[in-house]
Amino acid sequence: MQSKEISKAVIKRLPRYYRYLGELLEDKVERISSNDLSKKMHVTASQIRQDLNNFGGFGQQGYGYNVQYLYTEIGKILGLDTIHPMIILGAGNLGQALANYAEFEKRGFKLIGIFDVNPVLEGIAVRGIEIQLLPELPLFLKEHHVEIAILTLPKNRAKDMAQLLIDNGIRAIWNFAHLDLDAPEGVIVENVHLSESLMTLSYNLSQYRKEHID
Amino acid sequence: MQSKEISKAVIKRLPRYYRYLGELLEDKVERISSNDLSKKMHVTASQIRQDLNNFGGFGQQGYGYNVQYLYTEIGKILGLDTIHPMIILGAGNLGQALANYAEFEKRGFKLIGIFDVNPVLEGIAVRGIEIQLLPELPLFLKEHHVEIAILTLPKNRAKDMAQLLIDNGIRAIWNFAHLDLDAPEGVIVENVHLSESLMTLSYNLSQYRKEHID
Repeated sequence: MQSKEISKAVIKRLPRYYRYLGELLEDKVERISSNDLSKKMHVTASQIRQDLNNFGGFGQQGYGYNVQYLYTEIGKILGLDTIHPMIILGAGNLGQALANYAEFEKRGFKLIGIFDVNPVLEGIAVRGIEIQLLPELPLFLKEHHVEIAILTLPKNRAKDMAQLLIDNGIRAIWNFAHLDLDAPEGVIVENVHLSESLMTLSYNLSQYRKEHID
Repeated sequence: MQSKEISKAVIKRLPRYYRYLGELLEDKVERISSNDLSKKMHVTASQIRQDLNNFGGFGQQGYGYNVQYLYTEIGKILGLDTIHPMIILGAGNLGQALANYAEFEKRGFKLIGIFDVNPVLEGIAVRGIEIQLLPELPLFLKEHHVEIAILTLPKNRAKDMAQLLIDNGIRAIWNFAHLDLDAPEGVIVENVHLSESLMTLSYNLSQYRKEHID
């Protein structure tokens, strides 16, 4: 049991460490100093040391980090050492894009079901998984252990769907619908708002223009 | 010209204000106090006032905010009062999902081209725009004013593509490829790492379990 509260900012950085360490492994790098990792990631070395100290360190002063070890340990912290069965609700383009993304499965996120309201999609296989119609969902949830539900459906359906999922025992929702889902105690929701990222880009673009043209 | 530097955290929150104000408008709400907005958004009222003060306030003590006015003004700050012509590089599922997302166009993000390497996709129309092959890109960029390029292609192609785009005058890249694109001075990059969001979910899920089961 983790007694110390880890800040959200650190948690947000962990997947990035994990990704960079994965790239180092691909490049057959065995050890890396916090300085070198810092240059690669554009984070200060002291930030890296601080972040990793939250989890007990992993490094030996002067020797740098063992890349494989650190990668594995961060993977464990992120919960990537177990299989997380997932389902996708909404088999539109985005749902299918996520279903087709094979990298998730390598990290333990195993897609076991895809559901949609559209009868035209019924039975179409995406990466070997046949799209089912929504009325089949409650039975499916009874018969299968599902950990994570991915919501790629319109905003106006998302709230009811989330409630249905929670009522049927789902404890983690990855939400792409364009609203913030409020989670009751014990349910974890990660909201992804793609349009907010695009607006941030647009903000930075217009600020840059103002500074250089106005 | 904006003389004051606005913090990244504030900028990240602006699209969220914009979204909530848009919802209020849909619900025909004309005025809202920072307290009520605060309850809706799960942000403190003083945070809201502070954030908006960065841009000159918008509120009158005791009267709350005029929703339409605030929505319009934040839209301007986000650069949503002008048209941003965009192209998508990579017409796979994710590229097509983004192409099909009509909301972007409402905010001024106008898709004018989709490109892919796969000849099978050539000429297929997504929301009325025919997919073109990549060799046609440089000429297209000469003949059209493109502001934002969306990268939805594999990691191993993303760097070269970004360079090609930058060489051809693109100044804003919305990157979905699984690497951090480093931008040269004057080029704005917004990296979206979907798998990092999924890992954050998985982290929170395993922490919750540890706290409640271990």
